[in-house]
Amino acid sequence: MSDYLYGKNSFVEALHGDRIKKAYVLKDSSFINDLKKRKIEYEIVDRRFLDKMSKSGNHQGVLAEVKEYKLYDVDDLLKKENGLIVVLDGLKDPHNLGAIIRTCECAGADGIIYKKHNAVKLNDTVAKVACGALEYVKVSEVTNLTNTLKKLKEKGYWIVGSDGSATTSYADVDYNRNIVLVIGSEGEGISRLVLEECDYVVSLPMKGKVNSLNASVAAGILIYNAVKSRSC
Amino acid sequence: MSDYLYGKNSFVEALHGDRIKKAYVLKDSSFINDLKKRKIEYEIVDRRFLDKMSKSGNHQGVLAEVKEYKLYDVDDLLKKENGLIVVLDGLKDPHNLGAIIRTCECAGADGIIYKKHNAVKLNDTVAKVACGALEYVKVSEVTNLTNTLKKLKEKGYWIVGSDGSATTSYADVDYNRNIVLVIGSEGEGISRLVLEECDYVVSLPMKGKVNSLNASVAAGILIYNAVKSRSC
Repeated sequence: MSDYLYGKNSFVEALHGDRIKKAYVLKDSSFINDLKKRKIEYEIVDRRFLDKMSKSGNHQGVLAEVKEYKLYDVDDLLKKENGLIVVLDGLKDPHNLGAIIRTCECAGADGIIYKKHNAVKLNDTVAKVACGALEYVKVSEVTNLTNTLKKLKEKGYWIVGSDGSATTSYADVDYNRNIVLVIGSEGEGISRLVLEECDYVVSLPMKGKVNSLNASVAAGILIYNAVKSRSC
Repeated sequence: MSDYLYGKNSFVEALHGDRIKKAYVLKDSSFINDLKKRKIEYEIVDRRFLDKMSKSGNHQGVLAEVKEYKLYDVDDLLKKENGLIVVLDGLKDPHNLGAIIRTCECAGADGIIYKKHNAVKLNDTVAKVACGALEYVKVSEVTNLTNTLKKLKEKGYWIVGSDGSATTSYADVDYNRNIVLVIGSEGEGISRLVLEECDYVVSLPMKGKVNSLNASVAAGILIYNAVKSRSC
């Protein structure tokens, strides 16, 4: 996991979240006053240094060495009632993970659980795409997703997986209880063993010919639908 | 507008859509038989050629020179009843445009309208992110979005714009009529003049601290909510 982040939104959120160990900014940066006030160590650097450190070059003039992201135990995500946890089964794209973290923060979901291996993990691209939401969303890495889902069911959670071939619509589930939404990987969807743990396998209506949504868009539709159906 | 596309999904869809003028493939490509069968001109090239031509390098072994994307008149997107048109006001990110095209295709929306100037337009990144959906979604470029919205209202459409500061929830609108959903730009949202044309300005519930969704995720939630409320 990288100890560096870049981009203004991520920088501001890390600043507010008190996660910056050391900042690297351009000499005319508007952040210098704030860094001084908060007594955070900083160094004036040139654009070439930032380009090199941020790799993609999309640093918007700021880079920060930060404390590692805090990871949570699955137990920290549990609620007595109306819990909402998002489980990611083998997601690969950091842009999708970042966008899903952002959606979870906006929708008030309790957290995200994903597999430690063979899947995208927290990194600075994820943090940047999440636009600072990573500071507020509980993320848990687990080695065995199937066992985690079994445990969540024991704790009173209902597991709703999304799969294109399902005949049940996402609209036909009662979300007024503890819910886990399972989102599959970009190409493959949810793996067989994880599907077997789902209490409901649902699909989004597909009226076209391409019939597959971007993973973070599908997650957004499912998360907001669950939240909306609780408030009705 | 680029005349080239790359990536397997886009390539397959352009193949099916009969849009390929000439294909560039690796010597062991699985597409060669299909290209021969369809009598499409192709050239065997090496990976370096594809890397250079695709710029990002994310070509997955295929590149195609294609006929230009067909653009439609706004009139081609109109329906007598239960029309659903998505209007983009100053969207900047090709990944967002691609994902929104993909969502429109899946949800069965009638098309997308965006501004010709100061906004992202169709290009090969958009086509790739759209995963082939661009072949099936009607896209219209207009010079004046405000005038277009006025015209859509005259044709019986209701304009629903999404804005974080709105007090009306997206859930409290009747979507059982001709609807235009307006999505703002990534940083700025919907511009003042366009907001003035909206019959409803709605917001998505925001329960966190970051309070802004990715534009393509927000569009997905709004589009699928409209479709769902029609089927209930």
